[in-house]
Order: sequence, then C-alpha cells, then structure tokens
Amino acid sequence: MAGVNVGLIGTGRIGNLHAKNLAFRVPGANLAAVADIRAQAAEECAVECQCPAACQDYRTILEDPDIEAVVICSSTDTHAQIIEEAATAGKHIFCEKPLDFDLARIDQVLAAVHEAGVKLQVGFNRRFDSNFKRVRDLVAEGAIGTPHIVRITSRDPEPPPIEYVKVSGGIFLDMTIHDFDMARYLIGSEVTELYVAGGVMVDPEIGKAGDIDTTVITLRYANGAIGTIDNSRKAVYGYDQRVEVFGSGGVVMVSNKKPDTAEWSTADGVQSSLPLFFFIERYTDSYIAEMRAFIECVQQDKPPPVTGIDGRIPVVMGYAAIKSYEENRPVKLSEIEAAL
Amino acid sequence: MAGVNVGLIGTGRIGNLHAKNLAFRVPGANLAAVADIRAQAAEECAVECQCPAACQDYRTILEDPDIEAVVICSSTDTHAQIIEEAATAGKHIFCEKPLDFDLARIDQVLAAVHEAGVKLQVGFNRRFDSNFKRVRDLVAEGAIGTPHIVRITSRDPEPPPIEYVKVSGGIFLDMTIHDFDMARYLIGSEVTELYVAGGVMVDPEIGKAGDIDTTVITLRYANGAIGTIDNSRKAVYGYDQRVEVFGSGGVVMVSNKKPDTAEWSTADGVQSSLPLFFFIERYTDSYIAEMRAFIECVQQDKPPPVTGIDGRIPVVMGYAAIKSYEENRPVKLSEIEAAL
Amino acid sequence: MAGVNVGLIGTGRIGNLHAKNLAFRVPGANLAAVADIRAQAAEECAVECQCPAACQDYRTILEDPDIEAVVICSSTDTHAQIIEEAATAGKHIFCEKPLDFDLARIDQVLAAVHEAGVKLQVGFNRRFDSNFKRVRDLVAEGAIGTPHIVRITSRDPEPPPIEYVKVSGGIFLDMTIHDFDMARYLIGSEVTELYVAGGVMVDPEIGKAGDIDTTVITLRYANGAIGTIDNSRKAVYGYDQRVEVFGSGGVVMVSNKKPDTAEWSTADGVQSSLPLFFFIERYTDSYIAEMRAFIECVQQDKPPPVTGIDGRIPVVMGYAAIKSYEENRPVKLSEIEAAL
Amino acid sequence: MAGVNVGLIGTGRIGNLHAKNLAFRVPGANLAAVADIRAQAAEECAVECQCPAACQDYRTILEDPDIEAVVICSSTDTHAQIIEEAATAGKHIFCEKPLDFDLARIDQVLAAVHEAGVKLQVGFNRRFDSNFKRVRDLVAEGAIGTPHIVRITSRDPEPPPIEYVKVSGGIFLDMTIHDFDMARYLIGSEVTELYVAGGVMVDPEIGKAGDIDTTVITLRYANGAIGTIDNSRKAVYGYDQRVEVFGSGGVVMVSNKKPDTAEWSTADGVQSSLPLFFFIERYTDSYIAEMRAFIECVQQDKPPPVTGIDGRIPVVMGYAAIKSYEENRPVKLSEIEAAL
Repeated sequence: MAGVNVGLIGTGRIGNLHAKNLAFRVPGANLAAVADIRAQAAEECAVECQCPAACQDYRTILEDPDIEAVVICSSTDTHAQIIEEAATAGKHIFCEKPLDFDLARIDQVLAAVHEAGVKLQVGFNRRFDSNFKRVRDLVAEGAIGTPHIVRITSRDPEPPPIEYVKVSGGIFLDMTIHDFDMARYLIGSEVTELYVAGGVMVDPEIGKAGDIDTTVITLRYANGAIGTIDNSRKAVYGYDQRVEVFGSGGVVMVSNKKPDTAEWSTADGVQSSLPLFFFIERYTDSYIAEMRAFIECVQQDKPPPVTGIDGRIPVVMGYAAIKSYEENRPVKLSEIEAAL
Repeated sequence: MAGVNVGLIGTGRIGNLHAKNLAFRVPGANLAAVADIRAQAAEECAVECQCPAACQDYRTILEDPDIEAVVICSSTDTHAQIIEEAATAGKHIFCEKPLDFDLARIDQVLAAVHEAGVKLQVGFNRRFDSNFKRVRDLVAEGAIGTPHIVRITSRDPEPPPIEYVKVSGGIFLDMTIHDFDMARYLIGSEVTELYVAGGVMVDPEIGKAGDIDTTVITLRYANGAIGTIDNSRKAVYGYDQRVEVFGSGGVVMVSNKKPDTAEWSTADGVQSSLPLFFFIERYTDSYIAEMRAFIECVQQDKPPPVTGIDGRIPVVMGYAAIKSYEENRPVKLSEIEAAL
Repeated sequence: MAGVNVGLIGTGRIGNLHAKNLAFRVPGANLAAVADIRAQAAEECAVECQCPAACQDYRTILEDPDIEAVVICSSTDTHAQIIEEAATAGKHIFCEKPLDFDLARIDQVLAAVHEAGVKLQVGFNRRFDSNFKRVRDLVAEGAIGTPHIVRITSRDPEPPPIEYVKVSGGIFLDMTIHDFDMARYLIGSEVTELYVAGGVMVDPEIGKAGDIDTTVITLRYANGAIGTIDNSRKAVYGYDQRVEVFGSGGVVMVSNKKPDTAEWSTADGVQSSLPLFFFIERYTDSYIAEMRAFIECVQQDKPPPVTGIDGRIPVVMGYAAIKSYEENRPVKLSEIEAAL
Repeated sequence: MAGVNVGLIGTGRIGNLHAKNLAFRVPGANLAAVADIRAQAAEECAVECQCPAACQDYRTILEDPDIEAVVICSSTDTHAQIIEEAATAGKHIFCEKPLDFDLARIDQVLAAVHEAGVKLQVGFNRRFDSNFKRVRDLVAEGAIGTPHIVRITSRDPEPPPIEYVKVSGGIFLDMTIHDFDMARYLIGSEVTELYVAGGVMVDPEIGKAGDIDTTVITLRYANGAIGTIDNSRKAVYGYDQRVEVFGSGGVVMVSNKKPDTAEWSTADGVQSSLPLFFFIERYTDSYIAEMRAFIECVQQDKPPPVTGIDGRIPVVMGYAAIKSYEENRPVKLSEIEAAL
C-alpha cells in the first residue's frame, strides 16, 4: 500500500510531537513537509524528523499536489480558516481540538469539509488511550449491562500560565472539553442536559482572569443514564485521569498510569510511584494511535474515528456548562442550539 | 470502672446485632434487659445474649432504676416517642437512624433530650468504619490540604422489598441519609445546597412505588468545597462503599472491603474476590465500635460522637434532595429550614 | 444441640485470647473452667470471661466429669504430659503447637490419644485464615491446575526477646513450623526433601544464642512440585504473610491484610497503610475459626481439621531444616525418620 | 553532537527490533547498514528502517570506515567470532546475550575487546526496564536498608519449540541467564553459591530433549544476602516478571506490566487484564533504553552500562546451576572457575 504524504502545520509542542510520530512511528505516513509561521521552528522540526521540506506559509503545503493530508496543530484561532482552505485544496484533514470557539463558524467549516468530500478527524486523542478504549469496549459489548452512572475524574497537575488562561476559552472549553468527549465516547449516547458547580479554589489569579479552576458537572444522557465529571486545574500528585461506568450488570473503572509498578514498604508506610506527570507522558501512545487511525482512514477510505460532529458537540456542551455555571441551574444542550 | 447497665428496645435484625455486641464485644456494657413487642423475639434474643431479662413493653426497661442507658432499635415511627420517654426517665440514649421523618418532631425530641440532660447518640455507624475514619483523620490533620472535591459512592447490592420501599421515606431519607452524614463527617463543614439528578433504572416497581433507585447528587459546602454522591439500589457485584477527598495538598480514597486478598490468574484473566456483600458483613466492626463509643461516653461523661444535631441535619438534606429532584434545580438547605 | 463444656489450661497471652473466644465468640462452647499455675492469672481470666471456675492445678479440670474438652495453652514443655493425662481422662483436646520438640515423645503422645479414642486438634491457626483458605480451596478445586511452584513468605515484625530465642527450639521449630504446615496444607502433598540457606542478619545476639534469623528454604514435594519459604525475624513494615501457588492452569496469590484500604497521594508519592502488626491482629479471625472448628468436631463427632499427624510432620521438617542448615545440603525427611 | 553510524548484524526478530529502534527511536544513532546471511531479510529490514545499505556479509560492515559501532544480533554460535573481528576492526560493540556458551571462548573474546580498546555492551535489556531499574535504584540508595532476601520470579508464557530447546544450551543458559543477571544487578553483590531444584512439569518433550522446564534456585551472595529465582517455561496467564528485595529497612517489589489498568466487577467476580504477553511487548521500552545507553556511551566515551564481565558471570552461574541440578547439591561459582 502506498504511503500517505502528510503536511503538518504548526510545529509547537503538540505539532512537534505529531511530526515525530508521523515520521517515525506511523507506518504508511510520509511526513513530506512542515510549516510554521516561525520559520526556524519549522526548520528545526524538519531536521529532527528527517522531513524533506520546511516552510513558513501553510499555503505552500496546501498547494503541493503530492500532499494528500494535513495535520493542523496551529493556534486555535487559525483552525477554521486552515480547515476551509485545506478542504478546498482537497486535502484530508486532522485538526487539533477545538475546531473553533464559535459554533456558527464550526458549522461553516463542517459544511466546507462536507462539500469538499474530504475526511476530517478531530484530535480527541484520549479515545485512543488503551485504558479508556478498554472501558468503552467493555461497555459496548455489554460486559456491565445497561449503563446507569458515569464518573469521569480529570485533574491537571498544574494550571496553565495566567496569560494562557485568559485566551483559553475558559476551563469548560479548554479542559473539560476532553471530558465532554469522553462522556459521549464511553457511553455511546448523547448528553442532553448538564449542571455545573464550581469555583476558584486553586489560584485567585484564575478567578481574576474570569475563569474557575475546580468544577463538578452533572450529566444527563438521552438514554437515561446520569453521570459526573470532576475537574481541577491542580492535582499536586500528578495528572489524574480516571473513569468509571456503572451499569445493570457491573462496573468498570480504570486507575492512573504510572511510570513503574514498584511498591516499597518501610516503617513509615507503603509507598508507590506518582502517576505520569501530564498529557505528554500519559498519552504518548494515544497520540501515536490517533495518527495511525487517521492515516489508516485515509489509506483505506474509511470514516474517521473522531468526526467533525464529534468536534462540534463538546463545544456545545462547553457553552451549556458556562451558562449553567453562570445561572446556577441545569441547562439543556438544546437551549444552546436554539440560541444559534 | 463500673459497667453500664443497658436496656435494648427492638430485637429485629439490627437490634439483635447490637444486643450481641453489647453482651460480648463491648467492654463495660452489661446487657441488662431486652424488649420487643414480639415477646418471643425478646426472649430468644435474651437467651442468645445471656441477658437476664426480656420483656414485651419497653416501659419495663424505662422504669428499671438500675438501667442507665437504652439502645433504641425499634421501627422508625416509634423512635421519637421512645426517645422522649427515655429522656424523661433519665436514661442515656442510643437511637438508630433516622430519629424521625418529621423535622418538627425531631426538634421536639431534641428539646426533650436537652431538657433531660441525657446523652443522645444517633446510629450513623459508618463514621466508625476504619476506612472512612482514616479518610476523615487524614483530612482533619491536613494531609491532603484544603478539601476541594468530595466523592461518595454508595451502592447497595440489592434493593429492599417493594413493601419496604413504600414506607422507607424514599431513597434520600432511607439510603442516601448515610451518605449525607458521611459528606458532613469527612469534611467537617456543612453542606448548604444540593442538586439531584436521578431516575428509575433498576426496577420499574420502585418507580410505581413513587421512589427512584439511582441518583447523582451535587453538594456545595459552606467552606467552598463541592462534591458528589452517587447511589444505586443494585450493584450486582456487591456493596460498593467508597469515598474520595481531593484537596490542595493531595487526594485520599478508600476502596471496598473484601473477604480475602486472593488474586488468581488463568488464561482467562486476573480475578479477585467480590466486596463483602452488604452492611451486616461490611460494617461488622463499625457496629461494635459505635457501641463502644456510646458506652464510653456514658461511662466517662463525654459528649456523644454522633449528636442529635448530626441526626437532624441529614434529614434536612433528604428533604432538600426530594425538592431538588422534583423541581430539577439546586436547593438550599435554608429553604427547607425556612419552610418549617 | 447441647453446648460443649471446655476447660482451658494456661492463661498466658494466647490462652487468654482463646478463653475470650470460647466465652464470647464460639457458639456451642461453654468456658467452664480455666487453670494456670499462676493462680491470679487464672482468676483474672475467669472474671474477664465470665467463667464460673478458676484453678491453679490443671488436674482439677481433668477430674471434672462435666468437662468434655480441654484447650492446652501452657508452655511447650508441658504439652505432652497434659495431653496424655487429658486423653486418659477421656477429654477431647485442642493443643497449641508444637506438641513437643522430641519426636519420640510426640509419638508416645499420639499413641495415647489414639488409645483413648479422644480427638486431638493442633493449633495451626493459619489454616483458618480466610486468605490462605481461599488459596487452598482454589488449588484443591483445580482452579490453577496442577501445582508446580509454591512460595511462602513469612516475616515477623520484630524478633522475640533473646531469652525466648534461647528456649524456642530455634527458628525452624519456633517460627518456620507454621510455614511448614502451610506448605503441606496449601498443596495437599507431603514435602519429602528440603534445603536451607540462612544466616544471622537481623541481630548478632540471635547468632550468639545459637540461632539464625533469616532463611530461604527450598521444598520438594512427593507430587513433584517445588517451592520456597522465606523467613525473617524482622520486617520493619509489619507482619508479612503471603503465599503464592503457581500451576499448569494459572497462579493464585494473597497479599497482606491491612487495617484499612486508604490510599493517599501527595506531591511526595502514593501511600497506603502498613499491614496489621503481628499475629494477634492479623490472625484474630483465624483463632476464632479454629476454635469453632474444634467445638464443631466435638459436637458433631467429626475428625479434627488439624490432626496429631499434622502436628508431628512439621517437627520432622524442622529437624530436617536444622540438619540441612548445619551440613549445607538437601536433607530428606526420611533421614530424620530413620534416625529415630 | 555528531551522530553515531551503526551497522547491525543479524536481522532476525530481535535484530529487526533493534534496527527499528536505532532508526527511529534512538537520538544520535544513524543506522548506516544492516547485514544478514539471508540477503532478502537484510534488504527488507533496510527498507523498513530507511537504512541506506543492506548486505549479506557482515564483513562489509566491519570494513566500512564510516561505521563506528556494530550491534550483533546473529545466532549465538557466531557471537564470539564476530565480536573478535569487530574489535580488531576498531568498532564499538553491542552484542546480544549470551556472548558464547564456552567460558574459555568468552575469555578470549573479552581479551580481544580489551586489547582493541573498544567498548562492549551485552544485551541484558531488563536492566533498562523502568520497574527493575526503580528497584535497583531504591536498593542502591538504601531505601530498604541492607538487602537480606531477594526474590525473582520469571515465567514465560509458553515454551519455545522443541527444536530450539535442543540447541538452547538448556533452561539455565537460555532463560535463567537473564535472572542471573538481574540477581547481580539488583543487589550489586556477587552470587557465590547456588542450589537448584527443578523438574519437567510443563512438557515431557522438554525432558526428552534433555532439559527441564521448571526450577527454583537458591542464591547466596558475597555480602551475606540470600535469594531465590523461580522459573517456569509456561505461565498460561502471560509473561510473569516480578522481583522483590527485602532488607533491614523495608521491602520493595514490582508487579507485572499490563496493557491497561481496567478493573471490572460483575456478579461473577472482579477482573482485570492479563500481563503483557511476552518479552517483545513487556520489554519494548527497555530495548530502546539499552540502545540509547549504548549510543550514549559511544558518543560520550563512557563505560558501557553492561560490560563484558557482566556477560560472562551469568554463564558461570548457568554452569553452576547445571552442576547443582545434576548433583543435587549447592555449588560454588568458584568450582566452575576452578574447572576451567
């Protein structure tokens, strides 16, 4: 099977990671070019990844007829524009989340993608984590019966810089958005309503920036199940990423991934290692797996495993969460849709 | 130190358990008499516990000047009346939860106890479980910093008979009441508002009886912390009793108690034993410990570790939960108080 | 079913524990009398256990026609003599391990018991621990196929006083003897040969007393299985009592029992509680269970679950271990038997 | 820092794995050429690894002046010869274990390496596993005090083909050799004597081939510590790779690595996933880490982390094990050395 020529746009932290995976760990992918508005960053990334071409303008990539697919890792405010252009150029698209903060804009983008007939995969990498995938698979195959209660714990080891907080879209669109996706993925049913409790507990500066840092969210699903997400911007013991699904036939849960299984006991107690520090360490394999899945769907002309709609719905949930928090009442997703 | 002569009222399942503990496992307690409206039940319990006296009318116990303390395990609708009479008779009182379903009636009872100057301990036995106590102690000593998020999972292995459901006061006053107490106990701060999502997922008959069987409750505390309780009337894998407290300095959690630590692996997977089946098995030691604490507070004239107020507040929370469920909105506990 | 009148001989630490269990936790047992050469100790034990009679001379118990069974907890050097007299008196006998340090003497005792037709149960309590019992049951029912490898870890939290070490019979007859019993119990096959490596690592005083404190023992079974026991007199983290059986169909293992399941994570690591400190805490339930089994075998005229032969063989293994250690070579149990 | 040009010899299963790691996962390594006596295998490997040169004769690599280092993954019987030639050619050498089955031949090889002044690293990859490394580090830093007891469990998921068994050198030189290395690595002290018990329990064909498939080995260390290794050729539940070190200050142990942390409970029990199947899955990261360490020691002119002596001693231990098994007695390593 012929390899897929890929151009990567945006060689920041996550872009660099995807570039290396495409270059070295994704069979069937040829990293053909990388672009970054910072020319030197693109250059360095190309060298590191043994990639033949580096450019400053992503349009160089879009204009290259040998490139079939693009991976968009630039800043969020550029996603929509680049997706539209890439679609028009007939490229298959992998785009980091979120597609955009504006739902109307997302709808334009999805329409453009649809019209162009290209594939669009959104970067909800956690779906490709072996732990969460195992939970989803067990739920899907009925191992725990009909789902009744979902619990998602997602706590970062440390908050982002305040400057980032200010442009992040807020905790619900920046951080919880991954958990909103997880909530849908695990159960295979849509969330119809949610209720948010939350506050500023980690750092008052986050509050001054107009955001909160700690939250508990109640979910109601179309199929009758209920659930909770809890988030904190700061878990001093490391990245805390656990889920649990309880149903009529049992329960399944996953615990955190650790760098080793060592357990040592002294007169002071029994100790073990802290969880892997943050997403780069914890989700190493899932980043590779999502890119493999993208290349596979291009090569084999299959539907992408995370669609544009999958990219849109968590944004709706994010706006419902904001409204719920502001008004201290349960908010239906249909309210957000109706306001469009 | 002289032993405390105790009379026990109500020799049903939990009464019998307390009787045996008082007779054989609580140093300093003399089980002096047992009463039950079913004379034969009282008689059998007395024989089993090597207790010198059995009677049908609890007033026989209240009139016995040698008896200092009573343990009330009769049906809920009799609690208030017996407490009042026992207080008037100058007996110290241990009473099973709930004190009553009527908050005004509870207030009368607490006033009577106060006036009589006797001690009243309410049977929230889970506080004496070594697991939950350990969590509380670690939280109290600051091991996990300031509490931010509380998670309580409490799922029964099987629902009670429908006939019981009908008179139980509903899931919030019958089952969640223990978790409401736990929510207060773990954090040492009061819950001020709660929000309920829930439904009938286990058995439609429970719905027909006017109750629900599955719920997720969001808690807001006076100190700013937030939390969730999740309940199900039926966990097929056994009694699921776990808590977690997350704070600025870390997290503490407890898992279920099991009959053994065996883990066996075959070609099919790694297996271990199911949790202890239900409260009788799981909380064996906590029932002994709560009774020891009661006898100790009588002997040493100390305040009871679970007070009348501790018995009252979870009932308020139960009514707030009912209102929240009915109106699908967050409800402040002060609303319930204001309506009295 | 009529209760069994029991006389208990020797009210030291373990005797006191058995006395309380017989008095309060073993249905069907009547603790009718206790004896101890220290009259006051017997008296105090009787009061604590609500036992009607206390005496200094155990013969008072043996002469009491109403007493059917005796529980012997006196010092090891008195076991043989008291068993013989009790057997002659027609009492059923529970005796703490070891029966005696002299194999010829043990054989006399077993002959006396046999001739009298009374029951003799030896105090290998660990067989009644729910963990080890679960392993044995899984092995016996074939859950892990044919056993190939056995691993027993048994480490005390602290060594006994040097004065005790001197009269203990040495680590193999004092401490490992329990593991020798476990080795037979778990597999249901006899050990035929063993090889010992060991040394003085914990305390040079133990070496000066002619004993060792750390050992690893290789076992060969009649059925072809092999195994190891490892012992230390000092595990600073508490009583370490684990076993593992590996076979053609899988493996089963048990971990230590802990006072609670709490796990807490801070910036420094993940911590949990130390194992229960020592045998009194760890084997609380097994002491009750072995006494229940003894009373049951008397009441229902069943064979004792731990026989006189079960008491004898670990002593043979102990002598084989001593010889192996001294000569640094594998020693067959038949060598020890042949030397009798 | 300039990259290290590496030639790889032998593109079988493990060779292919190392080739891919060198090509894609080891910064600073340039996979410059691969050789295999099967020309097509070399060719395919080169294509897969984007390696510029493939050849049939390893001497082509040795003669290439641009190649600084070789990685030898050919069959065991060729190791000695190729090492000698590579040393003469001035190449740094990574060689898979064992160096040779003949100790005298190993000594010649080590002399040749020494004379040439090149580096030699032996492929004991398990030292680079994060679990075992953590144990070693904790032991080395004194976290568990002075080591007293070592336990190594190493069980394969399935035996190799009988044809391989016949030429494998036997279980001690083929399989246990890794555990002999681990025994030295964990403690940092030499084993001076060992005693073997073992037998044919898995497959009688292995016995007919003159080998055994199950063994328990007692180790005595120069520093007084003692330990055991247990091996089986067939653990139906997967690759079982655990170690434990017990010392004066505590204990440290590691459990198996699993593909996910999922735990699910149904009415039938609590289940979790089986360990990673075999060495390719379990030791993925350690193969990368050992190659990184090799490249680093070449680049930075540091001593290799696993030396030629480290490759020699486990072979001595293997011969001591064979002798111990045959003569059923403890054998000193010095006996083997003396017989050279």
